[in-house]
Amino acid sequence: MLFDPLTLNGLTLPNRICVPAMVTRLCGEDGFVNADITDRYMAFARGEAGLIVVEAMAVHRSKSGPLLRICGDEFKPGLSELARKMHAISPSKVAPQIIHFLKISRSGWRQKVSDLSIGDIKQIVREYAQAALRARECGFDAVELHMAHAYTLSSFLSRLNARRDDYGGSLENRLRAPLEVLAAVRAAVGRDFAVGIRFDADECIKGGYTVEESRAIALRLAQVGADWLSLSAGGKFEDAQAREGEPLYPYTGYSGERTMPGASYPDGANLYMAEGVKAYLRAHGVKTPVLATGKIGTPELAERVLREGHADLIGIARPILADPMWPKKTREGRFDKVIRCCYANVCKARDEHFQTVSCFLWPKGAKQAPQSDDSVAPVWPAEGASLSAAREHGRVVLHWNPATDNEAVYGYDVWREELGQWRRLSALPSGITQYHDAGAIPGISYAYRVQAYDFAGNRSEVSNIANLGA
Amino acid sequence: MLFDPLTLNGLTLPNRICVPAMVTRLCGEDGFVNADITDRYMAFARGEAGLIVVEAMAVHRSKSGPLLRICGDEFKPGLSELARKMHAISPSKVAPQIIHFLKISRSGWRQKVSDLSIGDIKQIVREYAQAALRARECGFDAVELHMAHAYTLSSFLSRLNARRDDYGGSLENRLRAPLEVLAAVRAAVGRDFAVGIRFDADECIKGGYTVEESRAIALRLAQVGADWLSLSAGGKFEDAQAREGEPLYPYTGYSGERTMPGASYPDGANLYMAEGVKAYLRAHGVKTPVLATGKIGTPELAERVLREGHADLIGIARPILADPMWPKKTREGRFDKVIRCCYANVCKARDEHFQTVSCFLWPKGAKQAPQSDDSVAPVWPAEGASLSAAREHGRVVLHWNPATDNEAVYGYDVWREELGQWRRLSALPSGITQYHDAGAIPGISYAYRVQAYDFAGNRSEVSNIANLGA
Repeated sequence: MLFDPLTLNGLTLPNRICVPAMVTRLCGEDGFVNADITDRYMAFARGEAGLIVVEAMAVHRSKSGPLLRICGDEFKPGLSELARKMHAISPSKVAPQIIHFLKISRSGWRQKVSDLSIGDIKQIVREYAQAALRARECGFDAVELHMAHAYTLSSFLSRLNARRDDYGGSLENRLRAPLEVLAAVRAAVGRDFAVGIRFDADECIKGGYTVEESRAIALRLAQVGADWLSLSAGGKFEDAQAREGEPLYPYTGYSGERTMPGASYPDGANLYMAEGVKAYLRAHGVKTPVLATGKIGTPELAERVLREGHADLIGIARPILADPMWPKKTREGRFDKVIRCCYANVCKARDEHFQTVSCFLWPKGAKQAPQSDDSVAPVWPAEGASLSAAREHGRVVLHWNPATDNEAVYGYDVWREELGQWRRLSALPSGITQYHDAGAIPGISYAYRVQAYDFAGNRSEVSNIANLGA
Repeated sequence: MLFDPLTLNGLTLPNRICVPAMVTRLCGEDGFVNADITDRYMAFARGEAGLIVVEAMAVHRSKSGPLLRICGDEFKPGLSELARKMHAISPSKVAPQIIHFLKISRSGWRQKVSDLSIGDIKQIVREYAQAALRARECGFDAVELHMAHAYTLSSFLSRLNARRDDYGGSLENRLRAPLEVLAAVRAAVGRDFAVGIRFDADECIKGGYTVEESRAIALRLAQVGADWLSLSAGGKFEDAQAREGEPLYPYTGYSGERTMPGASYPDGANLYMAEGVKAYLRAHGVKTPVLATGKIGTPELAERVLREGHADLIGIARPILADPMWPKKTREGRFDKVIRCCYANVCKARDEHFQTVSCFLWPKGAKQAPQSDDSVAPVWPAEGASLSAAREHGRVVLHWNPATDNEAVYGYDVWREELGQWRRLSALPSGITQYHDAGAIPGISYAYRVQAYDFAGNRSEVSNIANLGA
């Protein structure tokens, strides 16, 4: 089902894979599309996901760090050119994510939705509508309204919205500004343009809302005209970790960890949200597609989610950052050639430290994922991989021989077997030929194996299997 | 299945309901059992849960607020008397929860596991073993080792355990002190005494472990001899909210909210933990019973969890605080007579503010749940309940007439219907005859009803149904 088309308000996506909006920090403070941004999205376009959501761009002129902008007509040529170029090489549909955020200072002060006048709210509504219209005029296929994480519309939806007027207090009131935005966007872009919404299905903060309310939020957004509902989680200011001399940044606390669940989380850690939301929509007879995200890294898991009906679209962010060709390789039956995300969240850490976002697995210093059409796989030396595994000081320590390749060895996948199931533990960049498994316990027998890969994802033979008794 | 017996290492519980350890703050700083403590647990005993876990008692002499102690033989008479009295009136099995905690000061400083010498660790191991032996000598049926939340053994298990020696770093090392405690306890109490463990199945903090690791922790604890595994969540210092002049208290942050999910959470909010842990144990051929907790408030939900095999025991804390007769009334087919918890978490808030723990639904100032054998139900006045529902300022506002009762009206249950399903929204103490539903949205048709109840849980007729269009 992952490669079945899906139609959103007349817009047919060639498949069910979505690249959700991912911050890049590749853009300048001027907010214009530049060569690095273009390279990033052209790589995604070559991967042929059904829907590519271009990173959040500001609907207003508020000061910010590097951030794309769609707050004036001067940004349209660059954005139009990006859309044109992506369409020229790819069947992917492309939608910008548009965002409004409040002010924040290094002193720790931040503006809250309760500080906004009614005039301010009306202004935000207008800015969203104008930005959405610009998105359509630029040749994008759809637009996604950012109502997630720590940003303005999410803060209206939040259970911590402290307004005491018609824009806060009850769920209906918390929905008011987001729904006014949606209605104004719809009026601006017309009935025949797909408008999606990304919002938190679980705030993951103290006093925040959970699926109990987000399912009702989803229903209301769908009733008022959202064409798809993209579910995220957390990413809030309330639990962000303050860092000396830096403005408070969401995603630095626990709720940020829940936005991008890392290696310590189970696969599909946020799927309960899509299940809860979608079941509720369907019980109310609402058919709006639901997009699930959160550590869905394999076609098997993505397919299962679709087959079981828990979501209609699968957001795959970090794995497609690691290997932009994930969708195409998978469609062609070559998932075994995918460079696989290890959820080390170095991308997330770089963003938190205001650095350009790259992948831990990429060659050191690379701005983009490497490309290669090479078809020759790495090989182990004559004596083989000689993988060994031993318990040392409470860890299992693996050592193996380096592989070689006609181009270059790019990295190694490390696998562990338990109860007959092989599971990929991690990936390591070339040059590292040992791994410490800190999660193995006595009382279980494990087996390990490693495999080398090159830039094209060609895999070496599987190493010898190193067994470790209980 | 909820009323099927279950045998734990030779100890047969008459049913699958457990009252998990709940802080009461009823005890003095001297740590002895007093009349209020006795009243609290005698009420639970009359309710006839299969297993009653008596609130955490300290294995050591460290200074603390009001907290039971089992750290010396002088505490044995009081504890023995408590066990004897509970057994005299009830088939319930009774186990004390025993705890070690580290030092904390009002200045904000707190001792960490990384501050402990090897000698300190050995001392903790001895203290647990001695305390567990005392528990057996006092006539308790079992003992539960507290390895959850912000306390010493949980901090060893934590992914944030910062020790660099054999007691930290890897999962095996983080398990070392807890397993030494378990082994020493087992050696002290003998093979034929049931020893349970309560631990976090999800730390719910940044950098903490999730079910990915807790399932392995559970397996190892079971292999080394735990007779039941009671799953909790969160309750950590790392995200606790500092309050001026007070020592830092766990449960005040998001992770504490996850320990006792309140009204904004779905029912059974933590069940994914039991599902994940139990499936893993069984896949490894380990049959140790798993106890699930977290907003399991109805026999229907408890029964479903057991029937679907996701847990073997059901922890019901706040609902049994609200009505200690929950198990007995339910077994007798009189769940309709249960005073039902509304998860307002006033009990939790009182604990956070260092007040004695009572229930929001109890009569004002009551130290214990009221008792009554009355069988006459409250009645509505001649003109009926006259329940009305109207949307006002983004809320649905309900009003109704007060009921009367031969003894006293104790409170009202408020119900809402959506898609043909009636769901209890809240309960309100007598004297309040209006309710604001802040979670209703336009676009859905709802219906409402209320019902009055007395101290015995006798319910009035259902009120008229107030309908509210979309």
